[in-house]
Order: sequence, then C-alpha cells, then structure tokens
Amino acid sequence: MSWTLRADMVDDLARGAAVLGTGGGGDPYIGALLAKQALAAHGPVEVVTLDEIPADAQTLTVAMMGAPTVMVEKLPSLDEVTAPVTALGTFLGRPITHITCAEVGGVNSTIPVAAAAVLGLPLVDGDGMGRAFPELQMVLPTLYSVSASPLGFADEKGNAGVLNTTTSHWAERIARVACVEMGCSIMIAGFGMDGATAARALVPGSLRHSIEISAAITAARAAKTDPVAAAAAQLRGRVIATGKVVDVERGTTGGFARGQARIENSDGTTTLLFQNEHLIARREDAILTTTPDLIIVVDSESSEPITTEALRYGQRVSVLSAPSDPRWHQPEALSMVGPRYFGYDVDSCRFDGTPEPRELQ
Amino acid sequence: MSWTLRADMVDDLARGAAVLGTGGGGDPYIGALLAKQALAAHGPVEVVTLDEIPADAQTLTVAMMGAPTVMVEKLPSLDEVTAPVTALGTFLGRPITHITCAEVGGVNSTIPVAAAAVLGLPLVDGDGMGRAFPELQMVLPTLYSVSASPLGFADEKGNAGVLNTTTSHWAERIARVACVEMGCSIMIAGFGMDGATAARALVPGSLRHSIEISAAITAARAAKTDPVAAAAAQLRGRVIATGKVVDVERGTTGGFARGQARIENSDGTTTLLFQNEHLIARREDAILTTTPDLIIVVDSESSEPITTEALRYGQRVSVLSAPSDPRWHQPEALSMVGPRYFGYDVDSCRFDGTPEPRELQ
Repeated sequence: MSWTLRADMVDDLARGAAVLGTGGGGDPYIGALLAKQALAAHGPVEVVTLDEIPADAQTLTVAMMGAPTVMVEKLPSLDEVTAPVTALGTFLGRPITHITCAEVGGVNSTIPVAAAAVLGLPLVDGDGMGRAFPELQMVLPTLYSVSASPLGFADEKGNAGVLNTTTSHWAERIARVACVEMGCSIMIAGFGMDGATAARALVPGSLRHSIEISAAITAARAAKTDPVAAAAAQLRGRVIATGKVVDVERGTTGGFARGQARIENSDGTTTLLFQNEHLIARREDAILTTTPDLIIVVDSESSEPITTEALRYGQRVSVLSAPSDPRWHQPEALSMVGPRYFGYDVDSCRFDGTPEPRELQ
Repeated sequence: MSWTLRADMVDDLARGAAVLGTGGGGDPYIGALLAKQALAAHGPVEVVTLDEIPADAQTLTVAMMGAPTVMVEKLPSLDEVTAPVTALGTFLGRPITHITCAEVGGVNSTIPVAAAAVLGLPLVDGDGMGRAFPELQMVLPTLYSVSASPLGFADEKGNAGVLNTTTSHWAERIARVACVEMGCSIMIAGFGMDGATAARALVPGSLRHSIEISAAITAARAAKTDPVAAAAAQLRGRVIATGKVVDVERGTTGGFARGQARIENSDGTTTLLFQNEHLIARREDAILTTTPDLIIVVDSESSEPITTEALRYGQRVSVLSAPSDPRWHQPEALSMVGPRYFGYDVDSCRFDGTPEPRELQ
C-alpha cells in the first residue's frame, strides 16, 4: 500500500539506509539535509510499493555518483538533483512518471526523495541493490537486461549531459571519468524501466525497511536494551566483531574511496577492506564475510551507522554481517559484484561464514 | 556562389587542408578515404559560401576530437561520423540545416564532407579557425559568444552522448576525458549557430582555399617550378627553414600528440614545438613564429604536407610560416591560443618575425 514520506521521517530513513549502505551510499546527515529541504519546499512525497506501479509507468533512477568523501565538502543543490532528470527527459522526449533508488544509502536513498519532491513525482519503495555498491552497473536490473543508458548527469556548476551507450559498463566508464573531471561527485539519472520491469527487477520495500531499522535502534536505546542486537535482528544478521578501530588507511583514487580498517579486541584483529562500501571482513587469515553479503559498521554503544569515510582511529565499533538479496548469489551476479571483480583474490563467503559453492564463482 | 564538391576533388581538398592544418587536423589520406566513401554512396555535396547561408539556418560543426596518431589505427566509420549529429539533433529537437567545419585539416575538413553527404545537407565553405588548433574552444565563434555546447559525441563502438555545459571550456574538459576513455578519438558535433552568426564568425572560403593550394602545388610540379614557393604564395607566407629532420620527440598524453622536432641545415638548427599542431618555430634561441600564425611543414621537393604524427628522422622538409585570420591577434584571442596558453614562456611572434605588441599579451 502506498504511504506518505514526510520531512519528519527523513532522519530515520537516512539512518536506516546508512546501515544497509554497508559503509557506502553517502553521508546520512548530508542526504537528510537535502531531502528535508526539498520536502519543506515542495511538500511530502507519495511512496508506492512495487506491486502498485502501473505496468506502463516510466521509472527513472536518480543517484549520486562519485566519492562520498568529496560530497561532504561539495554539497549538492536541489537544482543539481533534478538537472540529470531534465537532461534525460529532453533526450527521451517522453515524461517520467516514477522515481526509483539505485541503491540503499544515506545519500542515495534521500536524493531520490528530493528529486521526487521537486519534480512532484511518486517515489518507488525499492532500490536496485538492497545495499550499496560502488559501480553503476552493479544493480539487479542489470540481470534483467535493463541498461543504465541512456544516462543523464549533472554537476553543481550547471554542467549536464546525456550518455547513450551500448552497455551499462560503457556508461559507467564514461560517466566515471566525467565525474572525476567534474569534481568527483555528480548526480545521475538512468536505468529507465517500464513499471512491469521495475516491479520484477528492484528489491522491494527498502525505504520502509530503512525506517524500520532506524526505529528498532531508537526503541532499543529507549528501552535500555542493546541497539546493535536490535539492528542485527532487523537485518536477520549477526555481530561478527566488536572492538576498537586501531588503523584506517584510505585514498580517493579514480573517483572511489578505497582503503582498509583494522578493528582490535582481545580475540584478535578484524580487517575490513572497502571501496566506497565494505567488501571483505577478515579475522587474521580467515574470511568472515565477503560481498555481495552485507558488512556493516556501527557504533558499538548507539548502533549509529558509520560510513567508510567517517571511520576513525579510536572508535568503538561493532561489525555486522547480514544476507543480501538472494539474487546476488547467482553466478552471473557474483561475477559482477563478487570479491574477484574488485581485485581481491578471495572466494566469496556468505554472511554466516559459509563459502559460496565453488562452481558458482 | 555555391559549388559542388565531388569525389574527384577530395584528394585536393584533403591535401590543401593538411597544409593549412599546420601539422594537425588529421591524416589527409584517412580523411580523404572517408569523404570519398560517403560521396560515392550518397552523391556530391552542395557547398555554400558564408554570404549564402540563410540567416535563420541552423548550422552544426562536425569534427574529430582526439589524438590523430590514434586515428591512423582506429579508422572511423560513416555511422560514427553522423552519430553525434543524430544524438545532438535528438537533444535539440529541431532539424539541422547546414554542416560546418571546426578547423582546416586533413581529417577535419573531410569528415564534415562525409557527414554532409550522408545526412544530405549542404556544407558551409568556411571553418572556425582558418587553421587547426588542439582544443575545442579555440575557434573564432568563441569570440562571438558561440558555445561548443550542446555538444554531441560518438565513438566507433556505438557509444554516444550529449553535453550541455556552462562554457565551451567545460565541454572541452568533459569531452576530452570521455575521448581518452573511449579510445583517444571520437566524433563530435557542436557549436550550433544560426546562419547570421555563422556568416560573421567563421573564416570564409577555407574549403575552396584548400583546393586552390593543392592545385598550385600540382601546377608547379607539372611546370617543374618550385611547389614549395607556389604553396607559400597561396598562403601569402614565407619559407623560414629548409633542411633535414634530425630528431623527433613525441608522446600521446591526455589525448594530445605533444612533442618537438629539430631540423638542421648549414645555417643551424630550427626547432618546432607542437601539440597536435606546430605552435612555435625557433632557430637556436630566436623565436621565428608562434601560434596563432601558421607554421607548416612540407616535403621540400614535392611540397606534400607532413602532419606532426608523420614527421620522421631523415625527411627533407621546408618550414613555412603564414598569417592567420587577423581576428586571432585580438588580445582575448591571444589569451586563448597564444604560446603562453600552451605552457610556453614565450611572447607571441607574427609569421614575418615581428613581435606582437606587448600590451596585447
């Protein structure tokens, strides 16, 4: 059933989305600011569930592309959020009816809210990943032959463009170099789908799920129970490490925030390898969990999510692992988002520590 | 008066354009191949002079962008030549009436011929520079507030795009990184102008002038007179050096062919500094000529033009210098295409060796 997203729900949405964002998907504070500004100016947004989208709807995904570390200093404007939709609409020559989310994340679940509010369009309760991933083509719609192209993009300076490429991978390559040239963060609009395709290809209910995760954390804090355990229960996941961040290495290269973090406790050292998102969790030489399953870092007291760019020496954190959408475990999906795609010589390992069957690699 | 460009005139056009291309503008053999293929398949092209363009015409410039060294191996197709026009036409939503040339050069005077033939549109006898320059915004229309944007682009793989930027410089920056990612040579369409603006902003008659330069070289060879002197007379220029190429250094960086060549004779060494085009001619420490005036290398026997990527050790060459369109000597033009823009700490020096007045720098 459709529901209404109001400004007072945005902080919960952004916090829960930052949990599912597995360290990526952007800073929830900045994402929430932008969505609240748009909702204050343009009124609440209607959110429709996947089974409610008309089959002939024309959906379009709106997202931020680039290094989230940059976005903290280079704040987007509402003009920038709608410019790629306008550019792409001009190119397509037909009206857009629904806005969708590419991924779940503090920014990429709230930017579509801002776009939907300004454009006066309904927002779809779902997203292309059920988590966050660093590259454009890494969405479930890719498995349904949906292309990122034609893809609109825009920066905060007023520059915009449209790409019409043979594959999503080419859209990613060209948009990525444009993104770096334009200052390492841009807004994009693409993955145009009809309603019937969107209903099949997207992960259902991720906006509502984000709000529920945040509400469970809040409720546990109020009841003086463990908010980390409450988040884990919402995620159907488990806590794989709790300790102190003793080292964070990072660099922004090629438009991505890459690096690794080490978390120590009396049991030993847990290492997280990330590229915008956490991709591998390792204790000493043992792999605990890998992409595509979720690896999430939260404050061990408050269960507040911590993005990879906000990780700092000395933080007391808990690391959660949780299952991803089961479609990510198909062989063609693993070749797109498994550890080897990201350059790690590691077999894929599920959230509960069981290895993926070898033949699926 | 309008005239008809037939396939049997293309070799002359390409050769003369390669002379005016000052070492850049692409390989005339490849450019001629493409234009002849298009004219054979689609019939001759009507060429209209600047004073014949209807004031309400919608002109569009078609060109190759990238490193000419790459184009020798990665041959463009006729589909690639028209794809940026199609992409931009879709974006603009109004029909294009005339094709124009961005610059004069072996490829960039013949690609517009191919585009006009395939699209069935008249070609304008003129271009944006009266020579060749390496960057997109380096055209006289920039001085008339004409923007490169919206700019269409396409590669040989079927990828295309449109940029809608705040300035030509931003179109250049984003298209350049896209160009490098797409394999260092792409086709572009932009600098949309109405007929009245095109008539004011372009350099008149450069297609006919190219054919006349080539005809003068051919006539001198037939008459056993000096074809280099014949070319110099057509250009209203002079020979500044004749000798043997003793050294060529080059590299393809950031989508440009950069380097320098040394030419020796009994008088000493003449050094040419180039970036796609020849930009500075120097004898020992004395500057002979700099951009924006023309520096041209031809075979000293045949007066066949030699592009910067075709320069080789041992070639016997003559270096010509000739005046550019006088508008290039305006202060705002010199700040766009003078030696300092290209990173050389050298004052601008005219084709006849006289320095530009200091205050114009």
